[in-house]
Amino acid sequence: MNIYRYEENPLITPLDVVPYHDGYEVIGAFNGGVAKYGDETLLLLRVAEKPIAEHENEVVAPYFNVKEQKLERVSFDKNDPTYNFDDPRMIRHKDNLGGFIYLTSISYIRIARSKDGHNFTLDKEPFLYPFNEYQTFGIEDARVMQMEDTYYITFSAVSECGVADALVTTKDFKTYDYKGNIFAPENKDVLLFPEKINDKYYALHRPSAKNIGELDIWLASSPDLVNWGDHKRLIGVRQNSYDDGRVGGGCTPIKTEAGWLILYHGATKKHRYVMGAALLDLNDPSVVLKRTTEPFLEPVAEYEKNGFFGDVVFACGTVQEGDTLKMYYGVADTSMAGCEMKISDLLHHLERTSCLTK
Amino acid sequence: MNIYRYEENPLITPLDVVPYHDGYEVIGAFNGGVAKYGDETLLLLRVAEKPIAEHENEVVAPYFNVKEQKLERVSFDKNDPTYNFDDPRMIRHKDNLGGFIYLTSISYIRIARSKDGHNFTLDKEPFLYPFNEYQTFGIEDARVMQMEDTYYITFSAVSECGVADALVTTKDFKTYDYKGNIFAPENKDVLLFPEKINDKYYALHRPSAKNIGELDIWLASSPDLVNWGDHKRLIGVRQNSYDDGRVGGGCTPIKTEAGWLILYHGATKKHRYVMGAALLDLNDPSVVLKRTTEPFLEPVAEYEKNGFFGDVVFACGTVQEGDTLKMYYGVADTSMAGCEMKISDLLHHLERTSCLTK
Repeated sequence: MNIYRYEENPLITPLDVVPYHDGYEVIGAFNGGVAKYGDETLLLLRVAEKPIAEHENEVVAPYFNVKEQKLERVSFDKNDPTYNFDDPRMIRHKDNLGGFIYLTSISYIRIARSKDGHNFTLDKEPFLYPFNEYQTFGIEDARVMQMEDTYYITFSAVSECGVADALVTTKDFKTYDYKGNIFAPENKDVLLFPEKINDKYYALHRPSAKNIGELDIWLASSPDLVNWGDHKRLIGVRQNSYDDGRVGGGCTPIKTEAGWLILYHGATKKHRYVMGAALLDLNDPSVVLKRTTEPFLEPVAEYEKNGFFGDVVFACGTVQEGDTLKMYYGVADTSMAGCEMKISDLLHHLERTSCLTK
Repeated sequence: MNIYRYEENPLITPLDVVPYHDGYEVIGAFNGGVAKYGDETLLLLRVAEKPIAEHENEVVAPYFNVKEQKLERVSFDKNDPTYNFDDPRMIRHKDNLGGFIYLTSISYIRIARSKDGHNFTLDKEPFLYPFNEYQTFGIEDARVMQMEDTYYITFSAVSECGVADALVTTKDFKTYDYKGNIFAPENKDVLLFPEKINDKYYALHRPSAKNIGELDIWLASSPDLVNWGDHKRLIGVRQNSYDDGRVGGGCTPIKTEAGWLILYHGATKKHRYVMGAALLDLNDPSVVLKRTTEPFLEPVAEYEKNGFFGDVVFACGTVQEGDTLKMYYGVADTSMAGCEMKISDLLHHLERTSCLTK
């Protein structure tokens, strides 16, 4: 299908972002949630800042000290055999490579604003910065759902307690109300449906289980967007597919005549991230009507293939204008890109390649 | 502190239970939730049935086929190097010993009834038997909370989808209403508080995270017992303690003048399970007032030390009569035992040994 990648891509790179912390470098400005606010397009960027090591063999991990309300750092020696430093994103114990102890950067949410959707200006201050014990390792991958004049922002809260999902609401993108962790660990990629369906709110979420279960997308329902129940597995990983490693919701679900259009990321076991689509029943989002067997967006451009963690396209939001969908997406865990497509094209692509094997 | 173990212990063993399935043996009748119903004490036993292998080198895994609505089995060869059979409870892939592929038995809930609380008669039929795709590997560890004439029963729903927590309600212990999975995977040990506190319901739950986070007890709140939010870590594992491996809620919280009395299981990294206690603020259960540094019940009796999985005491419910607390508990993942203690003694024990290090 036709995808028009913006000529200005990547739209925002780490070089465009002045670090908020002394002694840190910005290594990522990516995975931005998207909001239309007044006449502006806002990207709620995940900015990742990494402490600058003092010597070649030092690996530094930042964390937010809640009591002191300041960012601190822990130093590791690259040659310390207790730890594994192979994944540049994290510090792992050598005996537990399936988990991590610290991250090597701290993420928070900073807003980039644009009148034309192509050229963005960054705020100087963070919008969402760690403020409690569930966010000591950072705030990641915000998604925005708008209902009337209120914006509902979900994000991953990362700490030694686990990775939970929190909710804040705002009307002005300056101040916000904290609604707590709405999904318990371990969970990521929470997407709120933008309206009630048969008197219930719905969300997609992506649990990560310790003992059994894949990295699948689940559906939950709620009376109030804050309290969630009736958890059901919705979109699972598929063997021998582009999404055999993990799946996770990407953009706020889009209402079409054919059903709820879900744009999700799928990754292989080797961590190549692409974008797939699914269509859910308008009146019962627990019914998957269609699902792509071929991704509609794959990392092919240089900025998608190379970066801090390459071969990643990871969309967190869209702006819809009639049949045109402007999708903004993180690339290579480093920068932000944008593209445009027709919703009708996406629906044709779904029609043509659909397969419902879970 | 003084604990009086019943002389009839173990009260129920697998030998007392006629298998529900042809070709199966009962290997466990344990971890029973507790309800007072009319003049009877009910134990909502977890009955574990294991398919009888056809030859010495066969390991069989049962699963419930939802479509066919019948129990089926998968056969493994003990000498197949792809799998690991060291843990008698499960079949694991050799490359992922932190998780499992199949369980070697299927659990469901069967009721044992008693007028005196010591001598129990078992129902012939299961009360809660797998009925959907989230329960194909079984239903485990029920807990019961009573509010007026309605009993709220939570349990672990185990399947290849993950381990979720579900809720059913009943008024007669014959029929029930299914309320869905109220906590997403991976989660166990859900305990509902028996009344609203400042207009909210509360629950304890125990997530299991893949990448980071310990096996801690969390608190959540709800408007309706079905939808849950505001997840907070409440009672964490403690290094160099009886609960340095995992903790999980045990019995429905007990209201005392001093606070909400929480009886929880704690296990070491080597899987020795004991019972500890904590006290939460009456008006705000997110505040831990006290917590034992010494367990109040440990596996010392022969039936607690030896069995399918030894060195385990695992309480799932109590009956309160004034200052007397009758606690029923699973032993060695095999049988049920009972004991009595004074609530005042427990509060003194908490007072004497309390330590609030998380």
